[in-house]
Amino acid sequence: MTMTTSTDTRARILEAAARVFAEKGYYETRMDDIVAAADSSKGSLYFHFPNKEEIFFGLIETFIGLLEARLNETLSSEQHGMEQMDIALTTSLRLFTQYRAMAKIVLIQAVGLGAAFEQRRRAINDRFVAIIQKRIQKGIRDGSLPPQDAELTARAWVGALNEIVIHWIYTGTPDLETAVPEIKALLARSIGARHEGQ
Amino acid sequence: MTMTTSTDTRARILEAAARVFAEKGYYETRMDDIVAAADSSKGSLYFHFPNKEEIFFGLIETFIGLLEARLNETLSSEQHGMEQMDIALTTSLRLFTQYRAMAKIVLIQAVGLGAAFEQRRRAINDRFVAIIQKRIQKGIRDGSLPPQDAELTARAWVGALNEIVIHWIYTGTPDLETAVPEIKALLARSIGARHEGQ
Repeated sequence: MTMTTSTDTRARILEAAARVFAEKGYYETRMDDIVAAADSSKGSLYFHFPNKEEIFFGLIETFIGLLEARLNETLSSEQHGMEQMDIALTTSLRLFTQYRAMAKIVLIQAVGLGAAFEQRRRAINDRFVAIIQKRIQKGIRDGSLPPQDAELTARAWVGALNEIVIHWIYTGTPDLETAVPEIKALLARSIGARHEGQ
Repeated sequence: MTMTTSTDTRARILEAAARVFAEKGYYETRMDDIVAAADSSKGSLYFHFPNKEEIFFGLIETFIGLLEARLNETLSSEQHGMEQMDIALTTSLRLFTQYRAMAKIVLIQAVGLGAAFEQRRRAINDRFVAIIQKRIQKGIRDGSLPPQDAELTARAWVGALNEIVIHWIYTGTPDLETAVPEIKALLARSIGARHEGQ
């Protein structure tokens, strides 16, 4: 019971913090703002998070964990390679659209946090590179993809998708869900996948 | 004569600053360090640059300007599309290898400078997107490339190349010059170029 309440409080704090960070930015946000937005107490906040930085990392980990879980779920399914890519891409981009405030925090505000956080950002990128790389290697093994440097390709995808999503956050274009077919076609070409359904 | 001397001094300051920034990082660098490294005077330094931030931007603009000039030169040449891409890619990656300290400053240290600089970084990315986009559009017009969203593809390239170069700066792998053929093959596939010479 205490555990459940504690988990709920943590989730409520993170949810409130996402709103405050998205509105005020990381530097302008004070712990007191989060206490107020979470309808919590200072003691409870500090029990869960020793400082603002840890709340921020908590948020980023939550979002990244969600994205990663959805990707792994899709990619371990029995579907055909290109269908998997379609679903994985649609799911990921929808997650960004759905949690635009979080996406802004992860991809833009986090960039401004300096060298210490850069290492954590690199590690997150590497996790996604590994997921994509593994899937490409599977395709190479089963003959559905031509031989290629799977890590390089996977890294290129992570960079390309980051850039497209960051541009969307700043400008609102292209609309990510509308752009899915074009992005999918681009990625499919880049790995030399056969173009079913095009 | 005075102009020449002034330009020389400015160049010497930038060169010294690149070494100091690369060694100590942006935040740890003091104007005095740059004065010492440039074998210059405080008065002369402040005559050219009002503050550390402007030296930093001066450096970034110098590097980006050089890269942009080389790209535009290559892309306005009479060579065949894929040959142009080959030269452009080799030239750009060699520039990073040659000026690794500068590359580190532009791509890594600059990331830590917060929201104000992010706008300048976005603008730089957009310049490269525009250069690539224009070239892809030309290929679509002359029929050497299939129809596609040239801006989306160009943005994906900028993101992909950034990510690959940043990874190289951190880890030293893959060696950029060795990786050129693989990167070129990946980019060529991504735009649906015919694979001459592969």
